[in-house]
Amino acid sequence: MKEECGIFGIYSSRGLGVAEEVYLGLSALQHRGQESCGIAVSNDGKFSFKREGGTVLDVFDEESLSELGNGQIAVGHVRYDPFGRGGRESAQPLVLKYAHGSLAVCNNGALTNRYELRAELERDAAIFQTDTDAELIAYIIARERIRSGSIETAMANAMDKLQGAYSVLIMSPHKLIAARDPLGIRPLSLGKIGGSWVVASETCAFDTIGAEFVRDIEPGEVIMLNHEGLHSIKAKKAAKSALCIFEYVYFSRPDSVLMGQSVHLARRLAGKILAQEHPIEADLVCGVPDSGIDAALGYAEESGIPYGIGLVKNEFIGRVFIQDTQQKRERLVSIKLNALSAAVKGKRIVLVDDSIVRGTTCTRIVGLLREAGAKEVHVRISSPPFVHPCFFGTDIKSKESLMANRLPHDGLCKALGADTLGYLSVAGIRSIAPQAQTGFCDACFTGEYPIEVPEEIPFDKYSHKIKVSGGKS
Amino acid sequence: MKEECGIFGIYSSRGLGVAEEVYLGLSALQHRGQESCGIAVSNDGKFSFKREGGTVLDVFDEESLSELGNGQIAVGHVRYDPFGRGGRESAQPLVLKYAHGSLAVCNNGALTNRYELRAELERDAAIFQTDTDAELIAYIIARERIRSGSIETAMANAMDKLQGAYSVLIMSPHKLIAARDPLGIRPLSLGKIGGSWVVASETCAFDTIGAEFVRDIEPGEVIMLNHEGLHSIKAKKAAKSALCIFEYVYFSRPDSVLMGQSVHLARRLAGKILAQEHPIEADLVCGVPDSGIDAALGYAEESGIPYGIGLVKNEFIGRVFIQDTQQKRERLVSIKLNALSAAVKGKRIVLVDDSIVRGTTCTRIVGLLREAGAKEVHVRISSPPFVHPCFFGTDIKSKESLMANRLPHDGLCKALGADTLGYLSVAGIRSIAPQAQTGFCDACFTGEYPIEVPEEIPFDKYSHKIKVSGGKS
Amino acid sequence: MKEECGIFGIYSSRGLGVAEEVYLGLSALQHRGQESCGIAVSNDGKFSFKREGGTVLDVFDEESLSELGNGQIAVGHVRYDPFGRGGRESAQPLVLKYAHGSLAVCNNGALTNRYELRAELERDAAIFQTDTDAELIAYIIARERIRSGSIETAMANAMDKLQGAYSVLIMSPHKLIAARDPLGIRPLSLGKIGGSWVVASETCAFDTIGAEFVRDIEPGEVIMLNHEGLHSIKAKKAAKSALCIFEYVYFSRPDSVLMGQSVHLARRLAGKILAQEHPIEADLVCGVPDSGIDAALGYAEESGIPYGIGLVKNEFIGRVFIQDTQQKRERLVSIKLNALSAAVKGKRIVLVDDSIVRGTTCTRIVGLLREAGAKEVHVRISSPPFVHPCFFGTDIKSKESLMANRLPHDGLCKALGADTLGYLSVAGIRSIAPQAQTGFCDACFTGEYPIEVPEEIPFDKYSHKIKVSGGKS
Amino acid sequence: MKEECGIFGIYSSRGLGVAEEVYLGLSALQHRGQESCGIAVSNDGKFSFKREGGTVLDVFDEESLSELGNGQIAVGHVRYDPFGRGGRESAQPLVLKYAHGSLAVCNNGALTNRYELRAELERDAAIFQTDTDAELIAYIIARERIRSGSIETAMANAMDKLQGAYSVLIMSPHKLIAARDPLGIRPLSLGKIGGSWVVASETCAFDTIGAEFVRDIEPGEVIMLNHEGLHSIKAKKAAKSALCIFEYVYFSRPDSVLMGQSVHLARRLAGKILAQEHPIEADLVCGVPDSGIDAALGYAEESGIPYGIGLVKNEFIGRVFIQDTQQKRERLVSIKLNALSAAVKGKRIVLVDDSIVRGTTCTRIVGLLREAGAKEVHVRISSPPFVHPCFFGTDIKSKESLMANRLPHDGLCKALGADTLGYLSVAGIRSIAPQAQTGFCDACFTGEYPIEVPEEIPFDKYSHKIKVSGGKS
Repeated sequence: MKEECGIFGIYSSRGLGVAEEVYLGLSALQHRGQESCGIAVSNDGKFSFKREGGTVLDVFDEESLSELGNGQIAVGHVRYDPFGRGGRESAQPLVLKYAHGSLAVCNNGALTNRYELRAELERDAAIFQTDTDAELIAYIIARERIRSGSIETAMANAMDKLQGAYSVLIMSPHKLIAARDPLGIRPLSLGKIGGSWVVASETCAFDTIGAEFVRDIEPGEVIMLNHEGLHSIKAKKAAKSALCIFEYVYFSRPDSVLMGQSVHLARRLAGKILAQEHPIEADLVCGVPDSGIDAALGYAEESGIPYGIGLVKNEFIGRVFIQDTQQKRERLVSIKLNALSAAVKGKRIVLVDDSIVRGTTCTRIVGLLREAGAKEVHVRISSPPFVHPCFFGTDIKSKESLMANRLPHDGLCKALGADTLGYLSVAGIRSIAPQAQTGFCDACFTGEYPIEVPEEIPFDKYSHKIKVSGGKS
Repeated sequence: MKEECGIFGIYSSRGLGVAEEVYLGLSALQHRGQESCGIAVSNDGKFSFKREGGTVLDVFDEESLSELGNGQIAVGHVRYDPFGRGGRESAQPLVLKYAHGSLAVCNNGALTNRYELRAELERDAAIFQTDTDAELIAYIIARERIRSGSIETAMANAMDKLQGAYSVLIMSPHKLIAARDPLGIRPLSLGKIGGSWVVASETCAFDTIGAEFVRDIEPGEVIMLNHEGLHSIKAKKAAKSALCIFEYVYFSRPDSVLMGQSVHLARRLAGKILAQEHPIEADLVCGVPDSGIDAALGYAEESGIPYGIGLVKNEFIGRVFIQDTQQKRERLVSIKLNALSAAVKGKRIVLVDDSIVRGTTCTRIVGLLREAGAKEVHVRISSPPFVHPCFFGTDIKSKESLMANRLPHDGLCKALGADTLGYLSVAGIRSIAPQAQTGFCDACFTGEYPIEVPEEIPFDKYSHKIKVSGGKS
Repeated sequence: MKEECGIFGIYSSRGLGVAEEVYLGLSALQHRGQESCGIAVSNDGKFSFKREGGTVLDVFDEESLSELGNGQIAVGHVRYDPFGRGGRESAQPLVLKYAHGSLAVCNNGALTNRYELRAELERDAAIFQTDTDAELIAYIIARERIRSGSIETAMANAMDKLQGAYSVLIMSPHKLIAARDPLGIRPLSLGKIGGSWVVASETCAFDTIGAEFVRDIEPGEVIMLNHEGLHSIKAKKAAKSALCIFEYVYFSRPDSVLMGQSVHLARRLAGKILAQEHPIEADLVCGVPDSGIDAALGYAEESGIPYGIGLVKNEFIGRVFIQDTQQKRERLVSIKLNALSAAVKGKRIVLVDDSIVRGTTCTRIVGLLREAGAKEVHVRISSPPFVHPCFFGTDIKSKESLMANRLPHDGLCKALGADTLGYLSVAGIRSIAPQAQTGFCDACFTGEYPIEVPEEIPFDKYSHKIKVSGGKS
Repeated sequence: MKEECGIFGIYSSRGLGVAEEVYLGLSALQHRGQESCGIAVSNDGKFSFKREGGTVLDVFDEESLSELGNGQIAVGHVRYDPFGRGGRESAQPLVLKYAHGSLAVCNNGALTNRYELRAELERDAAIFQTDTDAELIAYIIARERIRSGSIETAMANAMDKLQGAYSVLIMSPHKLIAARDPLGIRPLSLGKIGGSWVVASETCAFDTIGAEFVRDIEPGEVIMLNHEGLHSIKAKKAAKSALCIFEYVYFSRPDSVLMGQSVHLARRLAGKILAQEHPIEADLVCGVPDSGIDAALGYAEESGIPYGIGLVKNEFIGRVFIQDTQQKRERLVSIKLNALSAAVKGKRIVLVDDSIVRGTTCTRIVGLLREAGAKEVHVRISSPPFVHPCFFGTDIKSKESLMANRLPHDGLCKALGADTLGYLSVAGIRSIAPQAQTGFCDACFTGEYPIEVPEEIPFDKYSHKIKVSGGKS
């Protein structure tokens, strides 16, 4: 399972090294998307940019950062496209010119009314060069700007049209604008370093560059940063905010703090509740690296069963090539993970992970532990089963593709080869973030969407027509 | 001096290998632009494309051609941007979606009313992601299409708005459209191979893929190719056509035939008239490789002075690196060209080239010949001096940058180190293409523009604001 | 600190996919060297090979593995050169032809008499194209082979000449030979998969490809694998074997088992002994990822202080670029590691790592913990201080470069910014591998070398003369 | 047909930019080999080097030249391997260390006694890491050096052992040595620029860097350049020198002067004699670009038939990809060459080329001319038919592969589709270089080898065993 994007922006009063700060900030957000990335810089209103398929380290180096040059403002983006549309052609920031000069736009989220917006714009002869929501948002802003006195007002007004999840950064020649949808579905935080303001999807990016956290951008808030400082517009607040609960379970880095809640502590708490809900007698609690480690620690704390390392990850394996055979996927797991026989032999193991998607990986891991001599393997999952599609940018495509849906609980346990299987309850997941000053969206578990959603995820109307082969693959 | 673009399209009834035919066709048009290139394919209405900075051989290989897949229609583009805006970001075809589906647009030319068009579109909240005329044309077509029954009618109607030079290819899911501006400033020809129609900037591309020439697209004509065959719309014809005369002198390949006139024969004839206008007693006529060879042959034929090889080109030298010193440019000439001492020693040489731009290269070549022992060097140029800027896509920026303008004739001859110097007259250049069924634009020599032109070449209003660093170079 | 090499070989009776097995096996050994790598294959006696600077995933892909083709035997190598001699030019396997056909040679180790051997060979007009011990070993074998009846006997006889550490793989057209020096300083294990024999530096490589462990190659043993099976020559056994104790502390992967001892358990035991030797009152035991995690678990087990995660690693950061400033090294640590404020705030932390080399990294990590709110930081190191140079292939250059040597214990503790500092004792380190059926070399801690060593590490006599710029730049 | 190598060396008293001079010199020699290249530099005795598969422009750039650093001496090599052994692994200079320090060795030529030398060295336990003669020569020199007082004497003494063709450059820490075999089969010239000596395969490399030609290295001569200047040893002169006559016909650049004879004039003279030997009534003489242009000029001069351009080359086409079909080879010719219909239509054409190897290319070119409307095509070849293999480094593998051998004259003419066919006679070719102060080897035409040759070309004894897959991936 993969989240779609991370964004990072900086407004610097001194204007030195903004591209490098964005580069470092994006590298801290790399877990949010490895498909493509980009940085745009405004130097006294002149824009330069680079965007490309690949990770931040693949795409940027000393030379390309130096070509971006110095500037006062910069924005950047890392992307995973949940709908599989290719690398470079949908890389952001989207850089464009319109009636009032230049803009660079980055987005994290997914609009639920993209079809309607697109159709409306096309009726007015708009042309679209990408499949991104960023391009839709740019068009809406360009239209609003004509009737509004400033780009930040245009963004605030655009909120009446945009539905769904969006955390947006907009760079104009002399301003940096950040906005978050009224539900606050995706995170966005404000920080400060020296005399410069920074905005990032997660606070871990602030730690990486040495910035201090100031506050979260509020759901429905637009902030504008320029040489006079920070201006906030409370554009449009929903009755109840709805941060994606999966940001705590999986997407965000454990060292981030979202809306006041430490991600690490939320995961540990999930593990503790899981231990209360699904206790078992065992000798060792192990987490699946790296996604299950924090919850495993919590499970061990609560249960009193010792925490240990049962699986070792090969940290050098990225895109390993192996012959395409029936056993390929299974073999891939063995190449990336190895069971630690010396630790698990003859032991009853509690194996903790954050979720089950297709189930093949989990099945293979249970097998590895058994081959290494584990006597029992009890699988514990620190979130409830996915049973509803996500319309807000998470790659959970449909009910059919979710293994948890296809099998009854016993059948699933058997298919995994586990002795017992326990999921965190919905009540449990709703308790993992007690310090978060926000409501949650947990629709993927409950079907209770915070706003009306369309019947189908609006991702294939256009993309089936264009197969992009551009980009270095 | 460099021309801006070449375009190639194919409509195949059988639908095999269209990407490869475009690849080969573009490779034959590579002399028209080496900065970027691209190919888009429609396979039953699904588009795939790749575009990138670099030459056709740099960008495409077996793998990328195979990724483009099979299809029935394909269009491609090679680009030199006369205004220096970077590689990949303005590579074409422009691929887009609009109210009626997908389009791919390629253009060769330069609009004279781009500012007006852009401003008008921006007032309606259009956003621009490139600096290309192709994007402007795409917007105009998208607007016209809403009021027109077909994409070819939309293109024909768009001609009322577009001013200047444009040879355009448009691929819709099931049609290939080709159009040429009313003046016919840039060339565009129609050919056939097996059951497939092909369209190319120059006929040499037909020879390369084994297609036969059918006819030139007429100035102001729009043709549409689909499964029913060819349909022509005589959209808008100017009183007098005005093919860029420099297509014969420099841009086109000698083996192309434009509007009925062989480029090779036009150059030979230019050399003959030059010999009549500027005769001299000499022992050997040499051309500057490769631009001056044909005219040198003509000069030799007419004058009776033997034709010979006086300069040898290093064919392996492309982007050679040399230390950046004062002598750098001079040294570069010596690396690329060597005087053939055995042939020129003690001889009186007539040195023929097609034009003088900055003069440094010519000065160095005269020097090489003298160092190799030439007794006299008489420079003959097979076109008149440039004295007026080109608004139709040729890279002759301003009066100031033209050496021929800065110096009086005697001073220039002296600066080149030549014994005598002779340019073809305006009357002469007007006589070099007797078989061409078209009028000419020779405004760069005469200032007589075929249509009204703005005061300044419209190239820097936007581009000064965006410095694109994208693309791996 | 870095180890120098990993080796992997396969002899397959069926001869399918040997290159891919070596590729996967090397990827499991990648932690032993990321500077260069290579694979050589023998297909019915015909050799093909590729070697290059970079990691296994950088260098090999589907295409290059397929170019290596099928075969019955293959050997591979990953390399870190402790003496800084560059990438590709010293990549192995060394492939050569001599009087009896072709050979491919891979080595892990360091000869102590390389000067003497080289001088002797040069007196007989030998020429050297690399600085590797593999080339020296190849020469010695080629000489011995002339007097010996087989390549395996030649290898056995060569042991009389070679002094120091070497684990060697030799591929002849129809045999795979593996040999280990009489002290058994570097590990080497034998495994089996289907009908194929495999040899690897560590057993984790067997797990990765699904092979089963058979036994360790004995110190001083030569084994030969061919179509008749396995033949062993007990060439030359030292009175006492001396496996490098640092293989347990740092070099090997935790999931490997060397000479009967699990690496993971050795590290946990080191942590336990450390807790006995240097107890402290604290709230949380944290390991430095990933090198200190296992020992931290052991420390927590023994001390009863809870184990927790105090530092989060950015797993996407490889060769990040940052401006070269005074703070560069410090900043690099912050980019790669982040302190988990939610976990460490207000706590007394025991920070466990396996060793201190220069001390800058440790100092910065202590700083990160304090900035994140840690009340106390107690540094515990699971090995004794390095005080003697390693002559057997480990990158511990000299007494001077070792921070632990430059400062007295109290000064060091203060320099690190720690509240207390404790090292594992020499007696302690000698107790961490109770199940290992071997003696140890712990000379880096004690100065007690298992054989006579020269006054200086023999690494710079030649290399100062050749600076290789080849390889991937 | 392709020649195997070019070499370039420099000894600079000032020691600035030697790597760049070699880079430029090699780029002028690129026509002698595009498979691999390399440069080695000695800076106060320290060597740095880079070598790689590809052309000089592919392999070297500003960064790699700067990494090579400054120095006083440098040597470089471009290679085409006539025996097809792969790119990088046999790239030169060979850089090695031996009893007296470091050496870099480059060679152009082919030894006829390589088997005997190799066997003799292997009996003394030599190991070979390449298939190059350079490695054999290095071994012989290393052996001789032990008994000789200097490297230049060692080279001179080595001449007693080496048989066949070799032009060699040797760089020791403080000397540059150049040597040419006693027959002088391959060229080698001495030049001077400022205070620096330069040595190159051809004089065109001197022109490129602005050096002046001093003299040819004599057959059998060894010269040594060091801080005291030039020292010459007349090591071993054959009774009669034997420069490869094909250097004039094909290998060398027309602007080079070998042993006093201009290559361009030799080719023109070949064309003149050809016109005398095979006159025909015709309207136009065309050369096949670029190899037949000079001889075509000579044919036109002598015959009085006008010279013209009948074929246009696409200068951008390098390694174009086309689908592998039956018509592939034919199609490749059409992509690279186009007939100039306007020039050849209705004409009787004399088509001049320097040689016929397989005949497919020539057949296709005749076809192109006929399709373009040529009334008659008379093929004239400016050298006799190849009927004997070359043992001295030219890629003429065996009698069987030579089309000229497979068919009688009339059959060949018919197969080409030509109206008539004429070859230069043996007497003719012996007359084309009247100013050359040397004898010739014309054994490929006559079978009269200047020294005894083995029964088979010694190229496949070893290479069938090692298939190198290294090089550019």
